[in-house]
Amino acid sequence: QGILERLDAGEIVIGDGGFVIALEKRGYVKAGPWTPEATVEHPEAVRQLHREFLRAGSNVLQTFTFYASEDKLENRGNYVAEKISCQKLNEAACDLAREVANEGDALVAGGVSQTPSYLSCKDKAEVKAAFRKQLEVFMKKNVDFLIAEYFEHVEEAVWAVEVLKESGKPVAATMCIGPEGDMHGVSPGQCAVQLVKAGASIVGVNCHFDPDISLETVKLMKEGLQAAKLKAHLMSQPLAFHTPDCGKQGFIDLPEFPFALEPRIATRWDIQKYARKAYDLGVRYIGGCCGFEPYHIRAIAEELAPERGFLPEASDKHDSWGKSLSMHTKPWVRARARKEYWENLKAASGRPYCPSMSKPDGWGVTKGAKELMQQKEPTSEQQLKELFQRQKI
Amino acid sequence: QGILERLDAGEIVIGDGGFVIALEKRGYVKAGPWTPEATVEHPEAVRQLHREFLRAGSNVLQTFTFYASEDKLENRGNYVAEKISCQKLNEAACDLAREVANEGDALVAGGVSQTPSYLSCKDKAEVKAAFRKQLEVFMKKNVDFLIAEYFEHVEEAVWAVEVLKESGKPVAATMCIGPEGDMHGVSPGQCAVQLVKAGASIVGVNCHFDPDISLETVKLMKEGLQAAKLKAHLMSQPLAFHTPDCGKQGFIDLPEFPFALEPRIATRWDIQKYARKAYDLGVRYIGGCCGFEPYHIRAIAEELAPERGFLPEASDKHDSWGKSLSMHTKPWVRARARKEYWENLKAASGRPYCPSMSKPDGWGVTKGAKELMQQKEPTSEQQLKELFQRQKI
Amino acid sequence: QGILERLDAGEIVIGDGGFVIALEKRGYVKAGPWTPEATVEHPEAVRQLHREFLRAGSNVLQTFTFYASEDKLENRGNYVAEKISCQKLNEAACDLAREVANEGDALVAGGVSQTPSYLSCKDKAEVKAAFRKQLEVFMKKNVDFLIAEYFEHVEEAVWAVEVLKESGKPVAATMCIGPEGDMHGVSPGQCAVQLVKAGASIVGVNCHFDPDISLETVKLMKEGLQAAKLKAHLMSQPLAFHTPDCGKQGFIDLPEFPFALEPRIATRWDIQKYARKAYDLGVRYIGGCCGFEPYHIRAIAEELAPERGFLPEASDKHDSWGKSLSMHTKPWVRARARKEYWENLKAASGRPYCPSMSKPDGWGVTKGAKELMQQKEPTSEQQLKELFQRQKI
Amino acid sequence: QGILERLDAGEIVIGDGGFVIALEKRGYVKAGPWTPEATVEHPEAVRQLHREFLRAGSNVLQTFTFYASEDKLENRGNYVAEKISCQKLNEAACDLAREVANEGDALVAGGVSQTPSYLSCKDKAEVKAAFRKQLEVFMKKNVDFLIAEYFEHVEEAVWAVEVLKESGKPVAATMCIGPEGDMHGVSPGQCAVQLVKAGASIVGVNCHFDPDISLETVKLMKEGLQAAKLKAHLMSQPLAFHTPDCGKQGFIDLPEFPFALEPRIATRWDIQKYARKAYDLGVRYIGGCCGFEPYHIRAIAEELAPERGFLPEASDKHDSWGKSLSMHTKPWVRARARKEYWENLKAASGRPYCPSMSKPDGWGVTKGAKELMQQKEPTSEQQLKELFQRQKI
Repeated sequence: QGILERLDAGEIVIGDGGFVIALEKRGYVKAGPWTPEATVEHPEAVRQLHREFLRAGSNVLQTFTFYASEDKLENRGNYVAEKISCQKLNEAACDLAREVANEGDALVAGGVSQTPSYLSCKDKAEVKAAFRKQLEVFMKKNVDFLIAEYFEHVEEAVWAVEVLKESGKPVAATMCIGPEGDMHGVSPGQCAVQLVKAGASIVGVNCHFDPDISLETVKLMKEGLQAAKLKAHLMSQPLAFHTPDCGKQGFIDLPEFPFALEPRIATRWDIQKYARKAYDLGVRYIGGCCGFEPYHIRAIAEELAPERGFLPEASDKHDSWGKSLSMHTKPWVRARARKEYWENLKAASGRPYCPSMSKPDGWGVTKGAKELMQQKEPTSEQQLKELFQRQKI
Repeated sequence: QGILERLDAGEIVIGDGGFVIALEKRGYVKAGPWTPEATVEHPEAVRQLHREFLRAGSNVLQTFTFYASEDKLENRGNYVAEKISCQKLNEAACDLAREVANEGDALVAGGVSQTPSYLSCKDKAEVKAAFRKQLEVFMKKNVDFLIAEYFEHVEEAVWAVEVLKESGKPVAATMCIGPEGDMHGVSPGQCAVQLVKAGASIVGVNCHFDPDISLETVKLMKEGLQAAKLKAHLMSQPLAFHTPDCGKQGFIDLPEFPFALEPRIATRWDIQKYARKAYDLGVRYIGGCCGFEPYHIRAIAEELAPERGFLPEASDKHDSWGKSLSMHTKPWVRARARKEYWENLKAASGRPYCPSMSKPDGWGVTKGAKELMQQKEPTSEQQLKELFQRQKI
Repeated sequence: QGILERLDAGEIVIGDGGFVIALEKRGYVKAGPWTPEATVEHPEAVRQLHREFLRAGSNVLQTFTFYASEDKLENRGNYVAEKISCQKLNEAACDLAREVANEGDALVAGGVSQTPSYLSCKDKAEVKAAFRKQLEVFMKKNVDFLIAEYFEHVEEAVWAVEVLKESGKPVAATMCIGPEGDMHGVSPGQCAVQLVKAGASIVGVNCHFDPDISLETVKLMKEGLQAAKLKAHLMSQPLAFHTPDCGKQGFIDLPEFPFALEPRIATRWDIQKYARKAYDLGVRYIGGCCGFEPYHIRAIAEELAPERGFLPEASDKHDSWGKSLSMHTKPWVRARARKEYWENLKAASGRPYCPSMSKPDGWGVTKGAKELMQQKEPTSEQQLKELFQRQKI
Repeated sequence: QGILERLDAGEIVIGDGGFVIALEKRGYVKAGPWTPEATVEHPEAVRQLHREFLRAGSNVLQTFTFYASEDKLENRGNYVAEKISCQKLNEAACDLAREVANEGDALVAGGVSQTPSYLSCKDKAEVKAAFRKQLEVFMKKNVDFLIAEYFEHVEEAVWAVEVLKESGKPVAATMCIGPEGDMHGVSPGQCAVQLVKAGASIVGVNCHFDPDISLETVKLMKEGLQAAKLKAHLMSQPLAFHTPDCGKQGFIDLPEFPFALEPRIATRWDIQKYARKAYDLGVRYIGGCCGFEPYHIRAIAEELAPERGFLPEASDKHDSWGKSLSMHTKPWVRARARKEYWENLKAASGRPYCPSMSKPDGWGVTKGAKELMQQKEPTSEQQLKELFQRQKI
């Protein structure tokens, strides 16, 4: 059954977790470029991560094609040891996802994300051509449906949806925005309306914000759609990091990004709360983005097991709410084998010299940043100014 | 070259990270029993983790045989879907470690850990028989050297070393103790002396405490050996969790163990500090235990690259000290591409409703624990009392 | 010169600090009733606090008549050892303020605050009669101007202003609200408009929220007045407690109120930031409420000394920005004798087992509260329901 | 009855709180010099604070003669507006304490503290002369007993005791040290022994550390005395600041000293715990030092009311354990009117951008300090070096 058949039937569809952060920690992705050349260089590592998500309960395996548009790969290409063609990389990603999906009953979704072309030139035809090049691979490899994800500007997301719709396959679209809307100030409600009008059957958010802020944003999208009398399925794939202190542009601006986010990592119990809250809001495509490890996805599947009637395969190695501690030799550890304990625990950081929140960095904030900017610019000063004007920072 | 040749030559030997915690998150190990049946059930997952540690710079791959003594497997056996024989499990573990070790130039170490037999009967012959059973597999599979690790009682650790020494192979021994010593009150210095006298060529600590506390303990061991005019190589494989607030028995007693330790996870920069501090203390076998992911091991290898003269393979996906951020479009993110930034960052938890430290649980502390203890005992009340008397709690 | 002459001339007028919290700590006010019988019982204590505020730079001494309406005194009267008449208490308060004001050049302001009559009956005539009774004393004692402060409902505040205006003296009015407005949902902007229309020459907020939130509220009041083309002077007398985590009803609902607010107490540097921010917003009557001790008022006077051209008397015992540390024997303490140090210091709490924020209590939140409510009600269940309906909780 | 009669009879004697910190906040003492010229300049302020402590339950009023030795006053003299003679200042202090003590049944204790003479010359005769000069005033004014307090070096404390003993009056001696002992490394146990041998009838600690650390130190003193088979009464007057993170030299080295200690201020409940713990340890002279406000002293008196059989006068404005909240209109505030609530509350700081602990500053730590040291030295470089050698930093 396809994605829309499942959602239309009222099923809960569980997404997968974050590849770039997980594979960075495993040694296969470089922070900064964040490109997915591992599909060609180390297929066994990508395959294994797909498999873990499948075991954890994912109903969708996304092709590991984040930032895999040709312009991005070229832009960041110096990080890839041997030049890998965009097509080869995308094909390998499709093959890996399909291979593992076939080990269960998961769907394969081909994904595109925002492009440097949009930021640097904004030529509609050029940007659309980049998406179309990836789409050709997805069609050749016959993925089950398509996702346009990680867009900060709804204009570009609409272009992506328009291209993906050419395929005739169902299209989902998620933006990496918070309640304040996209980088041009378009509200979440308006973003959702534009995406659905462009052809998306499923809309929502991914990345950049924690589960609470992300669901707040999805709620605004839902309200926008209702006001416009439009219908679409809702989807959320937030961070598995706590970010109550981030600004409009999310976790990128937090001083801890990307190499000191550890204390912010969500527990499995945090994710169970998220899954319940998402379900209660009417979200039926529930997954994760950066920071989501297989056990976080399993937490979604376990929380919603009563509604779905079954547990994921990986629950053979996990009893709900810590029950597996009930045979521990220490009675005080056995005392943790219950839901009430983990639900109410306020987890300590073990870092008494660190604060609990940070001030996000941003334009004009960091003195060091300004100096550095004068030293080594990725583009000319003029280009940078235009770039930031576009981003309305 | 063997482990002792390397250490005697003054080389730094980098250990691997923690299997049970990492594989629990990946969905292959159950918290509570913590047994390694994944070697048989899901060899691809174990192989992949070995490979990631190898890429990250590990010079030793430990067989995934933690808690794989026959008595432990029986004790916890109900968690294993199909009964897997102790022998089969240990053999599979050896094969996996060797297979991956051969992809590089790593050594394979066969490992034994503390047994339920010791706690429940303390019969020397019986306990030694359990170790000997595992040793037979290690000899058959011809591991390069042997590690007795995760012992809370030096008496049992000595028995383990005595058995392992029968093989003629080099033996390392690490206890999961802090500066207060073992569960019978034997000081770290005395523990080290007894272990070396029993035949260990390498001694130190693993698990239960964070890098700072672990190195404090190793320092006491070093001083004990010096006072006794004994020589041995030093080894440390601590947690990658911050535990400044734990008690004598380490992180097990922290309220967050084992399902809410996330905010305590060390950053790569924390681990670089640990590696430097270990090196300065004279420790030359430097690795990790629970919580150590591949990128933590890579952090050891990168910190000590000046001394060793080379970087690990996985550094092809990691520039030191965040340098890979220097091409980011946002200048304030580029400003993070420097050592001083990450060295001094006080990472926020994003959890303003949580404290930074916890009071450890313990005997008599948890009211809930007492009630629970009356409900479902893993053993009879009498047995429990004896058990705790042995543990001197 | 009167209050309006001073403000009209562009002068900064510095208010005084919080009496009930300061005198509770000194042993003269009971938390809970918070009534000011100390004016009669212990005049020396009240006089001394007035004097300290005068020395610290206060240009206005408010009569200590908080909660001194007849209905409140009766309602809480059991806490006063010997029954003290409303008139006697208010007269004593006027005498004490005047006596100390004459030691400098401060003005005396007679103050009224919200009444139980309003909450329990809402009869306009009755509520106004309560204010009028206090006003008679203020007229007899010839205070310089009048303040209606600590009102949660703008309706009652308007009644108070109307009564106070009968005197012909200038009237200031401050509500204890945050950006969400009064308990009936009237916005800060609308509250300000109604108060000015009722006759208030000075409007703003006092109590219930920290300086940042209070100034945010004053900003909304300012914008409301501008939109309505009304003119009035702005006033702020916030808490000296950090309350980023409070809800709509402010610090009363925080779990720490009123006996564990210590870790939230503002430093003098926090208050200097507040004074500057208030000044920049156009507030010219700048004082404090609960938590403001004399040294906090001095901090306002010192921050604004450049604008005012003089320091307060108490600065003979305080050098700006810690300069008095420059002769300390320890060089690292001397290193603290500079503005940059104190401006940037992130002050630790010394409480690693405590969180940095709390969830406010509220209707329906506290299970224990519900049980207690069934046990001892100050009024009948029916009365309580009506009371809460009025409060729109 | 004299101090020894009371203690010998097994009575609990409650001390008073901290004058310099309280009067600094009230505007009468300058941080840095910390000298008590307020006794002459503003006697009403000093009298009022004595009165508040008396009402709160203090059985002893200490003369406000901290740092009032002639050499200190000269050393810091530029801070005193008009030169006040040492004698005049000490006499005024005695008169004020006696005047208020007579309003109740409190004793007056004359106090001496460490001298700059000791640090700069260490001439026994000269240092003793300074103490004797103060003692003459105490004898003339006929104080009830004497306290040598705030000594970092036991040698100087012994000299002080020897001088005070010349008077024939009972002598108490408290050092401002922690468990690591005095600045020359003399252990708390040894310090206590030396003080008792010199003639002190009461020994203990004051200032520099929080209640927990202070009681730990008193415990070591007690053990030292027991080992030496000496008898003395025990006394503790700690800080009312939480300082789990301070170093050997206490709160002076904390970055927050002295102008940002607010988040560390103890609640009344913290002090009740301290009073109980002190009592259980056998301490019978229980008071406070810096940070102790009148309500903290009242908390001691209330905690020990069951043992003493009476409440202090100021408890007419305080019901135990928040009982006075039981008539609040909000049920969730009424729910706080119970012991269990306040005992278990983990008070939030409202400061999510601040850490919970700080690293103490110290010699060589602060780069800024070094630079500053080169700029303006209170003494020559050579003198400073000697000074620090004496302090063995």
